[in-house]
Amino acid sequence: MSQALARLPGLGPRSARRAVLYLMKKRENALRPLLSALQTVAEKLSTCSICGNVDTSDPCSICTDPRRDEKSLCVVEEVSDLWALDRSRLFPGRYHVLGGRLSALDGVRPEDLTIDQLVRRVSAGGIDEVVLAMNATLEGQTTAHYVAERLEGFPIRLSQLAHGLPVGGELDYLDEGTLAQALRARRPIA
Amino acid sequence: MSQALARLPGLGPRSARRAVLYLMKKRENALRPLLSALQTVAEKLSTCSICGNVDTSDPCSICTDPRRDEKSLCVVEEVSDLWALDRSRLFPGRYHVLGGRLSALDGVRPEDLTIDQLVRRVSAGGIDEVVLAMNATLEGQTTAHYVAERLEGFPIRLSQLAHGLPVGGELDYLDEGTLAQALRARRPIA
Repeated sequence: MSQALARLPGLGPRSARRAVLYLMKKRENALRPLLSALQTVAEKLSTCSICGNVDTSDPCSICTDPRRDEKSLCVVEEVSDLWALDRSRLFPGRYHVLGGRLSALDGVRPEDLTIDQLVRRVSAGGIDEVVLAMNATLEGQTTAHYVAERLEGFPIRLSQLAHGLPVGGELDYLDEGTLAQALRARRPIA
Repeated sequence: MSQALARLPGLGPRSARRAVLYLMKKRENALRPLLSALQTVAEKLSTCSICGNVDTSDPCSICTDPRRDEKSLCVVEEVSDLWALDRSRLFPGRYHVLGGRLSALDGVRPEDLTIDQLVRRVSAGGIDEVVLAMNATLEGQTTAHYVAERLEGFPIRLSQLAHGLPVGGELDYLDEGTLAQALRARRPIA
């Protein structure tokens, strides 16, 4: 069990052994609830066949929510990004999870991601806005660029998350790349 | 001396005492060079009477550099922000240092900053672009808002640094405020 736990991100072999001892000691209060939670996950969670979200139903609760704008699509790399954006209901539309990012280093090619599915969703019609919400990393931006090219020619508004100073960001502590982007993309004040 | 050192930002009383002992031990190799460096600073450094930069000459080397675009002005809170922006020659124009930010909490009012001087510089003519480069903090943005109001009506292009994802920023690790701004200010892709 300790080896299985050590495979979790953020847990090393040592913390995994400590976790095992803790779970053994608190068999009733910790081990059993964890076990049943994991069983629920194993049985009930599935990947949404429309957007790639992970939820207890397929299609997921976002794809089936009638209050959400079905004409707007936000494209993210991973399910964790979808959750990050959705935590505060920032985006009123629906999502598309690519399942990763293009990476020559890791050998991730376009066909390893759900880009074809995205193009099919858009070409099926009914979508008039696509927001690319890839991470501001090199690989994220490469992916955004590629996806933008694939979506060229469709009658949609295509946009990308703004890059610049993060909230609370102080110039003296920010890297030059961020300052350069913030300056380059400066917004006119009415 | 230890008390004088402890007043420096980032040095507590204990590190100050250790620094004193170190300087006493290395009298020739550390104390004397530090002393002469501080003397140079005390004698030669001054505040630029045009922009508020700190330099060995007044007007400073930026204000007198003929290769810099004298029609473009970048407004920053502190000299450290000017240096941060200028480190990589991001901005081809000149600067204006406000000397702080408006703050009800700290009792900083518009007349405590060099806002009047800025308005005078702009109304004197010859400037056709002003970039507000305040920090993305509450007080920085309040200051930017106020400065923008004071510069209303002048025939200049007024803009503000872009806000959004910092370089390398991953959605899952960013705060909701930054995600909200990045989404709100999303850029259309041609």
